[in-house]
Amino acid sequence: MRVTLQNAASFSEVIGIVSELVSEIKIKLTMQGLQIAAIDPTNAAMLLYKLPASAFSHYEVDEEEDIGLSLDDFKQVLKRGKQESLSLETKDGKLFVNFGEQKKNFVLSLMDIEGEDRKEPELKFATTLKIESSKLQEAVEDCGIIADSVLLSLGERGFTLNARSSLHSAAIRILSEPYKGEIKSRYSLDYLQKMVKASKLSPEVKVQFSDDYPLKLHYISPEKAELSFILAPRVETD
Amino acid sequence: MRVTLQNAASFSEVIGIVSELVSEIKIKLTMQGLQIAAIDPTNAAMLLYKLPASAFSHYEVDEEEDIGLSLDDFKQVLKRGKQESLSLETKDGKLFVNFGEQKKNFVLSLMDIEGEDRKEPELKFATTLKIESSKLQEAVEDCGIIADSVLLSLGERGFTLNARSSLHSAAIRILSEPYKGEIKSRYSLDYLQKMVKASKLSPEVKVQFSDDYPLKLHYISPEKAELSFILAPRVETD
Amino acid sequence: MRVTLQNAASFSEVIGIVSELVSEIKIKLTMQGLQIAAIDPTNAAMLLYKLPASAFSHYEVDEEEDIGLSLDDFKQVLKRGKQESLSLETKDGKLFVNFGEQKKNFVLSLMDIEGEDRKEPELKFATTLKIESSKLQEAVEDCGIIADSVLLSLGERGFTLNARSSLHSAAIRILSEPYKGEIKSRYSLDYLQKMVKASKLSPEVKVQFSDDYPLKLHYISPEKAELSFILAPRVETD
Repeated sequence: MRVTLQNAASFSEVIGIVSELVSEIKIKLTMQGLQIAAIDPTNAAMLLYKLPASAFSHYEVDEEEDIGLSLDDFKQVLKRGKQESLSLETKDGKLFVNFGEQKKNFVLSLMDIEGEDRKEPELKFATTLKIESSKLQEAVEDCGIIADSVLLSLGERGFTLNARSSLHSAAIRILSEPYKGEIKSRYSLDYLQKMVKASKLSPEVKVQFSDDYPLKLHYISPEKAELSFILAPRVETD
Repeated sequence: MRVTLQNAASFSEVIGIVSELVSEIKIKLTMQGLQIAAIDPTNAAMLLYKLPASAFSHYEVDEEEDIGLSLDDFKQVLKRGKQESLSLETKDGKLFVNFGEQKKNFVLSLMDIEGEDRKEPELKFATTLKIESSKLQEAVEDCGIIADSVLLSLGERGFTLNARSSLHSAAIRILSEPYKGEIKSRYSLDYLQKMVKASKLSPEVKVQFSDDYPLKLHYISPEKAELSFILAPRVETD
Repeated sequence: MRVTLQNAASFSEVIGIVSELVSEIKIKLTMQGLQIAAIDPTNAAMLLYKLPASAFSHYEVDEEEDIGLSLDDFKQVLKRGKQESLSLETKDGKLFVNFGEQKKNFVLSLMDIEGEDRKEPELKFATTLKIESSKLQEAVEDCGIIADSVLLSLGERGFTLNARSSLHSAAIRILSEPYKGEIKSRYSLDYLQKMVKASKLSPEVKVQFSDDYPLKLHYISPEKAELSFILAPRVETD
């Protein structure tokens, strides 16, 4: 297979974000496009990335192919590309990474990544919010200085993030429209801080959650790349 | 009480500078304005900050109030504000810090800060110089690469900073006008390096000192905030 | 002697680069200009710097003089100068470093640097290439993420840098014109990464090498300063 992106920057960003959750990935190339599905070692967080064939300037995939990679190495190589075009090609158990019309050619050994394919779980959410992605990122960072978990709540006071330590607390309101009813769920800030870095990819994020239920963040970039995160709730045991 | 500043940035800078000298403060709110007086643990340096009621867009203080705070926490919270408006409100032994029309709300536990109120000592200086604050900052940093103390001197050669180690020395002239007579005093560069960071607040600084006598640096910001430092001399014992 | 440069920035850059290879230097001042020759402790790399008398706005050297300096101290002092003019003057075993019309005056103790003068070895190279210095720097950094040595080769495929680890490899082509014959030599990336920082001095670099033979990089700045590096090859023993 051989595929080319006109500009490597955004793909490189995604691989950087993925590398904070897992150390190895399987990139799947199908006729429809490129896909990454990864679950962090503690099983608390899942990441799904889809880049449709139409986002590539050249897309030549004759049969479905899995590319197993160490992310540390791949991330470092992608950083060398900047705004240049990026071609990926597999041959003889290796991945050829070319930047800018073959001037820079990196060859990475492929890895066998064990385990079955990760499928997105079927989830039913009580609500779907559309939010400025930079506002969500800022609010998550605001809460990160107070505690290691955050309570998302949607209710009369709109959509709010609450963090509390033994001494201090923070309440950040992102949406002000009141909501009939009340939905609340707590999540780890450590994971959220890694996930909201995806705000570079898209000005808007779709936020879905329910009471004590997983959270889904869904970013769609202008070139139709989709990056989703699913994060397990942190249920308090009193 | 409840007070509001239109722009949190400069207050946040001051709290950052204070936090390099002490770890806790008592902020005093009177009818006239906000005041901070702090003395570093070794008693070598004192800091005084005054923000008049007129600098606030809203100033509601019914009776004098002391707000005791851990600076590490307060500094981190203020950094989350950037150029937004900042409201401070006390209730039930807590400080409510709101940015930008209540969208971000932090609640900090107040502390009991022991000890009597710090008063500015009455000092008589032999001279008062007005200096570009960035020039003083640069000269202090120049001397910092040579030694850990600096000799300020005013005399025939103008106003000069001198630093000397066993091997090297530095002489930085800030003012060139000759002065009749001679004034000399030595101060710790460690403290000075922290104090001159206040040059962000004001383009000019008033420098006052005498022979082997404390130094006073006095910064007045455009919005009439006053930040002063008093630093004990370092008297050489041969 | 007393010499003055109108702008200290580029000289400060050079001293910064020199300080990564050696910890002490002997700066030689002759009627013709300023010279530095330094060899790193392992004898693998040599640096030569020449700044002609004409590059100085004032050049007063009555007899040849050697100035021995600790580079850590000298580098720190030069950084304090930025875009100002720089005067160097020796007197009584000391070096007087003045910035901006005597306003900043640093005095550094001189050191006795032992050993005979370093002369540039006479080398005959098979080829001389002229390359954009930023391209060489980028290619060296590209290879640095893969391995600790790089194979330079000039042949049918032009001028290429190749790096290889047990798992991955990189091939960066800098010039595309084919060359009749083939020249190959391997060098340490650790040294090259330090040397290519000189690309700040000049948009172009002259690259000279031969089969399993030293490499010479030669930078000439707009003000006719010449900075050359000679690097021993790394010969593989199988």
